[in-house]
Amino acid sequence: MKLLIQGGTVVTHEQTFVADVYCVDGKIVEVGPDLKISDVDDVVDANGKLVMPGGIDPHTHMQLPFMGTVAADDFASGTGAALAGGTTTIIDFVIPNPQQPLLEAYHQWRDWAQKAQCNYSFHVAITWWDDSVHADMKTLVEQHGVNSFKHFMAYKNAIMATDDILVASFSRCLELGAIPTVHAENGELVFHLQQQLMEKGITGPEAHPLSRPPKVEGEAASRAINIAGTLGAPIYLVHVSVEDSVEAIKYAKNKGQIVFGECLAGHLVVDDSVYQSQDWNLAAAHVMSPPFRPKKHQEALWNALQSGVLQTTATDHCAFCTAQKAMGKEDFTKIPNGTAGVEERMMVLWEKGVNQGRLTANEFVAITSANSAKIFNLFPQKGTIAVGSDADIVVWDPSKTKTLSSETQYSKIEHNIFEGMAVSGVPDTTICAGKIAWQQGELKTAPGDGQYVNRPPYASYYQSQLKRNQLAEPQAVER
Amino acid sequence: MKLLIQGGTVVTHEQTFVADVYCVDGKIVEVGPDLKISDVDDVVDANGKLVMPGGIDPHTHMQLPFMGTVAADDFASGTGAALAGGTTTIIDFVIPNPQQPLLEAYHQWRDWAQKAQCNYSFHVAITWWDDSVHADMKTLVEQHGVNSFKHFMAYKNAIMATDDILVASFSRCLELGAIPTVHAENGELVFHLQQQLMEKGITGPEAHPLSRPPKVEGEAASRAINIAGTLGAPIYLVHVSVEDSVEAIKYAKNKGQIVFGECLAGHLVVDDSVYQSQDWNLAAAHVMSPPFRPKKHQEALWNALQSGVLQTTATDHCAFCTAQKAMGKEDFTKIPNGTAGVEERMMVLWEKGVNQGRLTANEFVAITSANSAKIFNLFPQKGTIAVGSDADIVVWDPSKTKTLSSETQYSKIEHNIFEGMAVSGVPDTTICAGKIAWQQGELKTAPGDGQYVNRPPYASYYQSQLKRNQLAEPQAVER
Amino acid sequence: MKLLIQGGTVVTHEQTFVADVYCVDGKIVEVGPDLKISDVDDVVDANGKLVMPGGIDPHTHMQLPFMGTVAADDFASGTGAALAGGTTTIIDFVIPNPQQPLLEAYHQWRDWAQKAQCNYSFHVAITWWDDSVHADMKTLVEQHGVNSFKHFMAYKNAIMATDDILVASFSRCLELGAIPTVHAENGELVFHLQQQLMEKGITGPEAHPLSRPPKVEGEAASRAINIAGTLGAPIYLVHVSVEDSVEAIKYAKNKGQIVFGECLAGHLVVDDSVYQSQDWNLAAAHVMSPPFRPKKHQEALWNALQSGVLQTTATDHCAFCTAQKAMGKEDFTKIPNGTAGVEERMMVLWEKGVNQGRLTANEFVAITSANSAKIFNLFPQKGTIAVGSDADIVVWDPSKTKTLSSETQYSKIEHNIFEGMAVSGVPDTTICAGKIAWQQGELKTAPGDGQYVNRPPYASYYQSQLKRNQLAEPQAVER
Amino acid sequence: MKLLIQGGTVVTHEQTFVADVYCVDGKIVEVGPDLKISDVDDVVDANGKLVMPGGIDPHTHMQLPFMGTVAADDFASGTGAALAGGTTTIIDFVIPNPQQPLLEAYHQWRDWAQKAQCNYSFHVAITWWDDSVHADMKTLVEQHGVNSFKHFMAYKNAIMATDDILVASFSRCLELGAIPTVHAENGELVFHLQQQLMEKGITGPEAHPLSRPPKVEGEAASRAINIAGTLGAPIYLVHVSVEDSVEAIKYAKNKGQIVFGECLAGHLVVDDSVYQSQDWNLAAAHVMSPPFRPKKHQEALWNALQSGVLQTTATDHCAFCTAQKAMGKEDFTKIPNGTAGVEERMMVLWEKGVNQGRLTANEFVAITSANSAKIFNLFPQKGTIAVGSDADIVVWDPSKTKTLSSETQYSKIEHNIFEGMAVSGVPDTTICAGKIAWQQGELKTAPGDGQYVNRPPYASYYQSQLKRNQLAEPQAVER
Repeated sequence: MKLLIQGGTVVTHEQTFVADVYCVDGKIVEVGPDLKISDVDDVVDANGKLVMPGGIDPHTHMQLPFMGTVAADDFASGTGAALAGGTTTIIDFVIPNPQQPLLEAYHQWRDWAQKAQCNYSFHVAITWWDDSVHADMKTLVEQHGVNSFKHFMAYKNAIMATDDILVASFSRCLELGAIPTVHAENGELVFHLQQQLMEKGITGPEAHPLSRPPKVEGEAASRAINIAGTLGAPIYLVHVSVEDSVEAIKYAKNKGQIVFGECLAGHLVVDDSVYQSQDWNLAAAHVMSPPFRPKKHQEALWNALQSGVLQTTATDHCAFCTAQKAMGKEDFTKIPNGTAGVEERMMVLWEKGVNQGRLTANEFVAITSANSAKIFNLFPQKGTIAVGSDADIVVWDPSKTKTLSSETQYSKIEHNIFEGMAVSGVPDTTICAGKIAWQQGELKTAPGDGQYVNRPPYASYYQSQLKRNQLAEPQAVER
Repeated sequence: MKLLIQGGTVVTHEQTFVADVYCVDGKIVEVGPDLKISDVDDVVDANGKLVMPGGIDPHTHMQLPFMGTVAADDFASGTGAALAGGTTTIIDFVIPNPQQPLLEAYHQWRDWAQKAQCNYSFHVAITWWDDSVHADMKTLVEQHGVNSFKHFMAYKNAIMATDDILVASFSRCLELGAIPTVHAENGELVFHLQQQLMEKGITGPEAHPLSRPPKVEGEAASRAINIAGTLGAPIYLVHVSVEDSVEAIKYAKNKGQIVFGECLAGHLVVDDSVYQSQDWNLAAAHVMSPPFRPKKHQEALWNALQSGVLQTTATDHCAFCTAQKAMGKEDFTKIPNGTAGVEERMMVLWEKGVNQGRLTANEFVAITSANSAKIFNLFPQKGTIAVGSDADIVVWDPSKTKTLSSETQYSKIEHNIFEGMAVSGVPDTTICAGKIAWQQGELKTAPGDGQYVNRPPYASYYQSQLKRNQLAEPQAVER
Repeated sequence: MKLLIQGGTVVTHEQTFVADVYCVDGKIVEVGPDLKISDVDDVVDANGKLVMPGGIDPHTHMQLPFMGTVAADDFASGTGAALAGGTTTIIDFVIPNPQQPLLEAYHQWRDWAQKAQCNYSFHVAITWWDDSVHADMKTLVEQHGVNSFKHFMAYKNAIMATDDILVASFSRCLELGAIPTVHAENGELVFHLQQQLMEKGITGPEAHPLSRPPKVEGEAASRAINIAGTLGAPIYLVHVSVEDSVEAIKYAKNKGQIVFGECLAGHLVVDDSVYQSQDWNLAAAHVMSPPFRPKKHQEALWNALQSGVLQTTATDHCAFCTAQKAMGKEDFTKIPNGTAGVEERMMVLWEKGVNQGRLTANEFVAITSANSAKIFNLFPQKGTIAVGSDADIVVWDPSKTKTLSSETQYSKIEHNIFEGMAVSGVPDTTICAGKIAWQQGELKTAPGDGQYVNRPPYASYYQSQLKRNQLAEPQAVER
Repeated sequence: MKLLIQGGTVVTHEQTFVADVYCVDGKIVEVGPDLKISDVDDVVDANGKLVMPGGIDPHTHMQLPFMGTVAADDFASGTGAALAGGTTTIIDFVIPNPQQPLLEAYHQWRDWAQKAQCNYSFHVAITWWDDSVHADMKTLVEQHGVNSFKHFMAYKNAIMATDDILVASFSRCLELGAIPTVHAENGELVFHLQQQLMEKGITGPEAHPLSRPPKVEGEAASRAINIAGTLGAPIYLVHVSVEDSVEAIKYAKNKGQIVFGECLAGHLVVDDSVYQSQDWNLAAAHVMSPPFRPKKHQEALWNALQSGVLQTTATDHCAFCTAQKAMGKEDFTKIPNGTAGVEERMMVLWEKGVNQGRLTANEFVAITSANSAKIFNLFPQKGTIAVGSDADIVVWDPSKTKTLSSETQYSKIEHNIFEGMAVSGVPDTTICAGKIAWQQGELKTAPGDGQYVNRPPYASYYQSQLKRNQLAEPQAVER
């Protein structure tokens, strides 16, 4: 398959230049102005458009079994939505039940994901601990291309990882060159507040944010960072949603610790007023954890993205339809947690980021693609437009407008947290593995076209981490 | 008993003025210049001296059963040392074994304390949780003058309070008008690091600080503060020793949260180089938790005292003699944790605080006495020199010098963490409950002369706390 | 004159207790429960009421000649308004014209102030510099009871003090034991922005905040603090209105520097939306410098008051009537800067502070009275209820309500920045110098009843400042 | 000229990979493993070595006329030293005398620089202001490749730019797409402290740091940042040397402001103890502004480099020999300010940065080359190893060691601030404009071989800046 993208302006995380891009068999093989190439199967006209690395969404949950149901977008529909939004790679999660062998869960997820339409990879969650977990982590890193492990500090009595597990697993990650990631919320506090709210008769979606106030996240963020820092491990915080967490990351980074942070498109632009809606379904549609927050936190998140305190953007795409949400009609703690967004992420960030002057186009590429590639050790295979890189590309039309809506989305659910938002700047064509995967409204892939992506351990930042750990090695005093 | 203190300069936490002080039956009944009083049993000549409120040490452990032995200074010797240093009140700790009824432990400690020579009161530790603990907390507050409960976040497999206990107990404190206090160190990390160090063959006292690095404390400080903040409870952090904790307190205070912090005289002036001593006994003598820290943390603590981020100073006086420390010869984790200091605290703070220009004399009174009285709801009964207040007074000689040493101390142990420090400014006379308790080197009390101090709940700062909680009460949405 | 205040609850900055207060000849001579006193000229029934120190407003400008007119409230009407609001002492400003001898200006203001009805004192502004200014500062401190000098960092081409003047004057203050105070706004930036806005045709009151954005204040705050810190002088910032200044103060305090900050009742509760009013007169009525700010700054100010980063509250009472404001109809830079507030300050702070749970009643006393007394060295003569203190007292009725309005105010102007605010908690009786000055709506003083207050140099905090400067004295290296 | 660099490991600011690099006529034309190229004039064997972008030192002063003398390293010797240290581009400064036309000064410097041996470019200082300056700035930007203007906030009575000049010039920079840079020290404070120290008889080099304490820099940093922020201009701070400045930058960046900061190799590793030397010459050799600082500031600078708060490293190379320094024997204010370092910078950063685990090799490239290229709009022409980039390359031998010393340096002066430092990791070969310029101790260029580098305006970050300014454009209210 030979594809030529012609006449566009290439935008990477650090450069902007006019060039054609020639892709052969899934790789970029030439980049330059006015390429004279006749051997092409297909041509994309990028005149007046931007040619950017396809998006990487480092946080999705397709067809996740969760809270008694299964997320409505499966690996086929979810990855279709991704491609429609210019995202060519997702990193999803294997979440073993406590006591379930990690490898068993991993293979289960690999099986489910066979119908994916874009590139995919997996973080693996550590939800319990014994010697087999310790051993399986090694197997996953060395044989299955996993270089990141997830830890839920919330969800008591389910998948919550207590401090002893965090300590054991972060230490193991460090040995293996893998990065620990955390969902930072204090599960004990959430559990206590949930009970208290139910006892007070506050049972609707409005109770959801009250059960997970900002300090609940800030606490856990600080804890995870300090545990990692004490052990000499790097750490990555998923879906940072409050100023408190931003401050915790900032504090550690400013002391030289290696900390990464992700935020969700949703948290950047949707606030907690949604939970006050008179429409239960609408309010419930927004139930996810961490919840949407008071507006002032949005400013903190944007500033953190701009100043490099946060590096990546994601969606936590985990779509439940109205009927599923209704499981929590009488008890907000039973509303399945999750919203969609994998299709809208890049458009939302372009509109509110680039068009609002918060980000340059280069910074947009950094936070939607390049930085995730670097942290999860896919760069420069993915995350940039360069000779030798994978031909995962979005051709972006900065002048085209669109109104985001559940009516026109690929996701199977009935609502859209960005409903009604007008955006100026949308994908024109999404190219995945060197083939046109989506173009001007039409999906051109089929389930199963997506490829699994191996991610090797020891990303670049481990150099410093290991060197520092070695220099800090404790010594006995001779007496 | 009628006592006249004549010719001195009275220094309170906010005023400095020349006045005589007349005390009758344990109370101050008159304060003014040149009092014409003939009806006196005793006179203290305070010419050229300062008349200040007796010190309050809010953190001591006399005759504590701990780590397989019992602290060498009992309630008699320990309170004698206190009086010799100008301190007239200690707040010690009742520490129930897990599963031991709180009231049983409380009465045990009351019994041990009968031989005390100065005023004393008790914080009660919450080391486990069930309905009886919940009930006993109420009894202690309402019938036994306890308004503060302590929580150890360290000491795994012993007295560590996990997050569920913190949540339950802080909530209970709030209901009762009592203040939760915490020893902030992450017990899981300490446990992990201890094992790791022992495995590496680093078994001496030098391993102690390595097993409890600053982040271990900073993490727990942040956690305790956020848990309290989430629940709407005030919080008091004992022995803050690192910049990380100071920053956590500052952050919360700056957001309007009610947080108090204490630091120890030792942490202000002794650094972690002591653990590198070639003399095992000397190094082991300094084993306490949190450990002494790199020098830069001292600057952070002083600044925090100056700017009001920390309010109180204490000692954590828990004295173990050389033979006891030797229990950990082969394994640093078995060295009984604790040092002395109740005698030296005020002299050290005068020398390094007032003489070094870091504190005014008024601020000295605030951090050695008045602030503890306010936080633990003893003010103005204690903590000031005013008509109606208890006659707990230290007459201070700012021009007299002394070299601190184990050779001249009251404590029963063989070492002194301030060994060799020259101080200018020492107690001349200590008056406790209206009687001369110690004067120019001579202790004038007898075991049993000390009085138990009841501390009522709902200190002044609860006004705001409860009002805010009430205003923040969650509401259901009408749908 | 013998006055008995009976049956009230005394509230000082640190205590709350039931007591009668007996005042003789302007002094408090007895404080205690159920005083048996028959020798009284007058009795105030304080049952169900609070007895608090009279307010001190450390920042007013009565009958100030400014921007081509004279403030409408003169020393008679302005001090009447103060008494009506429970404030018994104002500290106003002598502002010499550049080149005008300080003493000449001082005497001019003393003369104007002869008709004052409450206590008054003067800061003196340093608006220019030569040897006579240097000399006059000493005379003012030693012979005229001035211990504070003000510096305007804004108002280019008028009274702006450039850095060389700040350096010279702060140094001189330090020598004299006086405290430098600053109006912190960068005058060059204001001048530039004013011109730019006028050129763009933005000439109305909405241009006012645009010409003085937060950074303009934050910059100057940081500059003043650093200059003072470099010279070893204490510093007091008047009308801190933005988070940027709060952060600058916090940063310095956290490093141990002696910095004080004041905020205005207006900045705490009024935001910058007022400048968008369609009513020119209303918008112009709010023109003062610094301007009212976006809401988020209010949260920062409240937090700063709560955490002690700011210590005092004031009003900058400088009242101009509608006709005066109209001088700037065509050019916002000509609108006389100033608003009223001396009458409302304490009610606003009670309502938004105490009733909203942000402050305890004790903290209310601290920030409306005691702290100003301490900083400007009037404590305990003023700022507290104690035997020996001046009988400047407000009897406060916490259950009485009122709606603030220009229609009922004492100030001579036609508007009120707190118009329509309902408050619960108002003065019942104001006692000044031992006499009832205002009671339940009726002013009982006459112009001239007010007394000038001498303020001696070397307030308590100078102890530390001078000690530190002495210890930091530079040394030559012997070569 | 065709040059092949064979067998090395290419290290850019974000990638590390094994590749040959082929350079033709000053450009990199091919990068890849095992290039099969026979058409070469010269080959560099890079086996076991790293191939990195040549260093860019954005802050040097060759043959600067300053303080009554001229810097000893001229454009020939200084650029030779640069090449010997792996630096291929310097950005020097045109510093007009006050009242001297900018263009005249610019041409003077261009003339002096004709003998340069490596690439060079010029920042132009704004030392005074009138309409001609305003006009000349445009000419410089549009016709002479200048995109940065420097402002000295110190040096009163000489080249100091007061606030009015800063406001005017920063505004002008913004219009032109150029970046203002500042030397941040408060000149009034320095002047005052210098006089005070001389009066006290402290006249030696030890007085130098006392006359420029950290707050003097922190103040000016904050001021420059706030002025730029108010005007909507980006800002670059040269030689940040203290924590206070780092904090000021951090604060602004965290609010979304576009601020860049540079630090010097010297400030990262040399502390202020040098001024206490008994050897006047040694102490005087270290006199530069800002001075070397107490050690704690070094930690702040390293952390800032690691966390991206500072982006570039430089030297402020301005070399004065012992005889020149002696001009200030009796008066430290007359010691010519300046030290060398252009030769040692990269070795020092490799040793203390990479070898100490503070930086990865990629980060090393970022802070020694790529970031300066980006900020000053030379990227990717310079600052990276990529097809199309200039062939400015250093082949680095990470295993070779060296001891830095004045005895072996290229600089003409007699001292070396890094004297005696052992480094592991040194340049093997420096390639400038595609030719071997220095190899294993031998300089292969001649004076005049260096090329002037044009730097166009509107670097990438201007996109956001201008967009934000446009969105923030003030509006009049319709009334």
